[in-house]
Amino acid sequence: MDPLLDRSPDRRSTSSPAPATRSASSVDLNADLGEGFAIWQLGDDEALLDVVTSANVACGGHAGDPATMRRVCLAAAERGVAVGAQVGYRDLAGFGRRRIDYAFAELRDEVIYQLGALDAFCRVAGTRLRYVKPHGALYNVATVDHTQAAAVVAAVSEYDATLPVLCLPGSMLAELAREAGLRPVAEGFADRGYQADGTLVPRTASGALVTAAAQVVERAVRMAVEKAVVAVDGTVVPCPVESICLHGDTPGAVTMARQVRAALLAAGVTLTPFA
Amino acid sequence: MDPLLDRSPDRRSTSSPAPATRSASSVDLNADLGEGFAIWQLGDDEALLDVVTSANVACGGHAGDPATMRRVCLAAAERGVAVGAQVGYRDLAGFGRRRIDYAFAELRDEVIYQLGALDAFCRVAGTRLRYVKPHGALYNVATVDHTQAAAVVAAVSEYDATLPVLCLPGSMLAELAREAGLRPVAEGFADRGYQADGTLVPRTASGALVTAAAQVVERAVRMAVEKAVVAVDGTVVPCPVESICLHGDTPGAVTMARQVRAALLAAGVTLTPFA
Amino acid sequence: MDPLLDRSPDRRSTSSPAPATRSASSVDLNADLGEGFAIWQLGDDEALLDVVTSANVACGGHAGDPATMRRVCLAAAERGVAVGAQVGYRDLAGFGRRRIDYAFAELRDEVIYQLGALDAFCRVAGTRLRYVKPHGALYNVATVDHTQAAAVVAAVSEYDATLPVLCLPGSMLAELAREAGLRPVAEGFADRGYQADGTLVPRTASGALVTAAAQVVERAVRMAVEKAVVAVDGTVVPCPVESICLHGDTPGAVTMARQVRAALLAAGVTLTPFA
Amino acid sequence: MDPLLDRSPDRRSTSSPAPATRSASSVDLNADLGEGFAIWQLGDDEALLDVVTSANVACGGHAGDPATMRRVCLAAAERGVAVGAQVGYRDLAGFGRRRIDYAFAELRDEVIYQLGALDAFCRVAGTRLRYVKPHGALYNVATVDHTQAAAVVAAVSEYDATLPVLCLPGSMLAELAREAGLRPVAEGFADRGYQADGTLVPRTASGALVTAAAQVVERAVRMAVEKAVVAVDGTVVPCPVESICLHGDTPGAVTMARQVRAALLAAGVTLTPFA
Repeated sequence: MDPLLDRSPDRRSTSSPAPATRSASSVDLNADLGEGFAIWQLGDDEALLDVVTSANVACGGHAGDPATMRRVCLAAAERGVAVGAQVGYRDLAGFGRRRIDYAFAELRDEVIYQLGALDAFCRVAGTRLRYVKPHGALYNVATVDHTQAAAVVAAVSEYDATLPVLCLPGSMLAELAREAGLRPVAEGFADRGYQADGTLVPRTASGALVTAAAQVVERAVRMAVEKAVVAVDGTVVPCPVESICLHGDTPGAVTMARQVRAALLAAGVTLTPFA
Repeated sequence: MDPLLDRSPDRRSTSSPAPATRSASSVDLNADLGEGFAIWQLGDDEALLDVVTSANVACGGHAGDPATMRRVCLAAAERGVAVGAQVGYRDLAGFGRRRIDYAFAELRDEVIYQLGALDAFCRVAGTRLRYVKPHGALYNVATVDHTQAAAVVAAVSEYDATLPVLCLPGSMLAELAREAGLRPVAEGFADRGYQADGTLVPRTASGALVTAAAQVVERAVRMAVEKAVVAVDGTVVPCPVESICLHGDTPGAVTMARQVRAALLAAGVTLTPFA
Repeated sequence: MDPLLDRSPDRRSTSSPAPATRSASSVDLNADLGEGFAIWQLGDDEALLDVVTSANVACGGHAGDPATMRRVCLAAAERGVAVGAQVGYRDLAGFGRRRIDYAFAELRDEVIYQLGALDAFCRVAGTRLRYVKPHGALYNVATVDHTQAAAVVAAVSEYDATLPVLCLPGSMLAELAREAGLRPVAEGFADRGYQADGTLVPRTASGALVTAAAQVVERAVRMAVEKAVVAVDGTVVPCPVESICLHGDTPGAVTMARQVRAALLAAGVTLTPFA
Repeated sequence: MDPLLDRSPDRRSTSSPAPATRSASSVDLNADLGEGFAIWQLGDDEALLDVVTSANVACGGHAGDPATMRRVCLAAAERGVAVGAQVGYRDLAGFGRRRIDYAFAELRDEVIYQLGALDAFCRVAGTRLRYVKPHGALYNVATVDHTQAAAVVAAVSEYDATLPVLCLPGSMLAELAREAGLRPVAEGFADRGYQADGTLVPRTASGALVTAAAQVVERAVRMAVEKAVVAVDGTVVPCPVESICLHGDTPGAVTMARQVRAALLAAGVTLTPFA
């Protein structure tokens, strides 16, 4: 059963766990990396690699070129950061952010292509591909669309069924991955609002974004330690995520990512890749 | 030592070997496949797969898309045809036929990217990548240019140093591959004229192309059985190739490829992949 | 008001008009051209240019490269064939056939880019751009989607509001074009089934395609002469189109296009560009 | 004759012209703009538009997408900045910086395509395309290569022979443009070293770059006022340029560009587009 769907009343709580509990916590921190192309850069890959435990590396579909993929894989391997394939639509012009109505087989093969390409740079870096996470519109569409979720699942199943799929808990992708015998890994967003049913507040609604650094940090710690988040209506909702997604495409985002990491370590949370 | 550079006089001959020798001969037949893109097709992949023993599959740089790569890899695997990566410049608009002045690292990484992408479809097809052959302008440039030849060699060395490199005997690429501990595999062209020193007649010179089907077939058999070719000046030149390159991008070419295959089999030559 | 929406009972008829009426008829024939890319060809542009009066030339989004655009514009100008911009999504890999969720401004600007690019080759060919027709998924989406139809209309309005828009009668695109003061030009499909309300039979339903050559030819003549079509239920439906769309991406299609042209001329129909 | 080739001894001088002369001086300032793509930005277009009088706008070959082209053209038009087409190789992955061996016709048509595309956005912005300047490797290759220089000249001649070509004085491109009846416009580089013969110090040689802001500013003023530059050997060389090229892809570069502009105005130089 999906973690976020498992919300029995007795698991809800507004109280924090005892400090003793904290020391046993562990979580992964993931972020998108290698999202430049050619001469263009996006975000500060080096800085983020010092913060995260898992790097979602762009594979050339929505962003990412061979030189960037190599550099990020090498830098990740040096730091013991796990490399995941941030697979996306083949749409550089749209940065993979606009939905494309791929047919099932087309999308499955596009994902396989990208998995293989990134895996090559993992091999060159002396490591191996450790997981898969869809990017942008593909991430969103695969949350609800059977065809596209199934295509991602088929690609991973065919390429390497031992690769976990990092995704939104409760999503179509998580469900189909599980059904196919893959391991879906739930991620949470400390800078996004949650509803009482454990789903994200839509971006168009108020409360969708949490911008105050202190609040983001606090929510990240709670996610990691209590596996819970405070919803927009004030209730504490279970949020049993294995990874927390950090953003890094602005200078401020990197600073916040560092604060989240520091706070988690201060709270006794072990930061470790999920794969 | 490069086969074509090993041309001691005693190996030159105008006489054919005895029939008994023929039965021990074997050679590989290679051709470019999967060179369509999106809706566009080029050549008849299915027909050629029934002729060749090695398929140089386009990897998305100059041609080739995920769906095509998958289809060709599956069809090759079914037939026991070895799949090689036909790596090329990232230049769909020019079909990889115009020289691009890549820097060493850029080209190395571009080749690694394509190797990984094709390898993914080999894996999906239940086989594995067996060799590498540069395409078009990259093939030509790597014949003489140190930077680009070295980039291809570095890519193969880093990705999988057990992969042979199919190339022109005596080329810079063959030489650097050998120096790096890779295995260069010499290929011959039954439809191209050769000079007395064992090199190809330049395309701009007369005698560059052999178009008569009977002559092409005869030359292919001689290459396979005697490891020799008749040069434009009539001398018989050693041509110890392991593979013969066939073309298939025209209907006539496929017919000729079939004739070459039939004649080789009739001459007792074993057709088998070199890798 | 849109032609196909103006279907008062008295305009319906199963009888043919008198021959005298025929001589006054005129219609345009349009087809997609220049849909190759790089080395790849699609259809026989030269053959079709001898059949049509309007050429929908691909502009580099879903197909078409500068050399092809130049060649087709020159060949069209020589024959007095009107050149229209066959604008499409920027998606070579999908040939513009899969829906992409462009934002309004993104799509508007993409269309403007393609209009300008094709216009340049019209200028070089001594002619000028005469109309606009969306391709593939953009054509279909703009039939019903306000955002994408409005984006096409905005692009044409901003670039050159005198350019007619060739489109499906009754479509969102036709409606928004008219509202914006542009001239929508209705096209019909002699090889597609129509419903009694004048709309096309969906491709997934039976009767969607008319494949018998004789029938296609007869329907084309009726469209041109009577401005009517026989629907799948047998009723004769008004179909006051100014242009008939021909297909040419298969050898058989070219033959049929020639038959349609010949039959129209034999029926006394004047073939002339609508713009 | 090319300005820089007209270097009779009596025109050399180490003395400055009298202040009275200065007030009659005028020059153009040009810079590369719109060189982002999709989500990626390069340089600060808005800031540079407040400095230059001519904007070399990328056209989608090496950089530039429709939305960016529109935005920059509109912003340039608002400020009375002339828009030129910064045409480049179709090579986003290489940012147009690596030589590609285009055939003459291929390159000519590629340039025409880009001219038309940018012209569309000029039209939308209520202005018109005013000149052409090749980008990156095309700029460098067209300086010495007859085929590529001729292709650029042919494109401009065919598209609009009234468009000036901004280029290196003394270059092959300048020469062929003049021969074809086009107007070559000489540009100078205040941040590049010059040799005593009026040519640029090669980038690999010492003295190639002038980095001290004060020196760059001083050289720009001298170029504008005296039409001269101090060569690396100390001699004062005539440098009768109509435009000075500024760079803006770093924060420091924008600051320096502003200083150059301010100094030129302070020296009584009129800043005005050359076209």
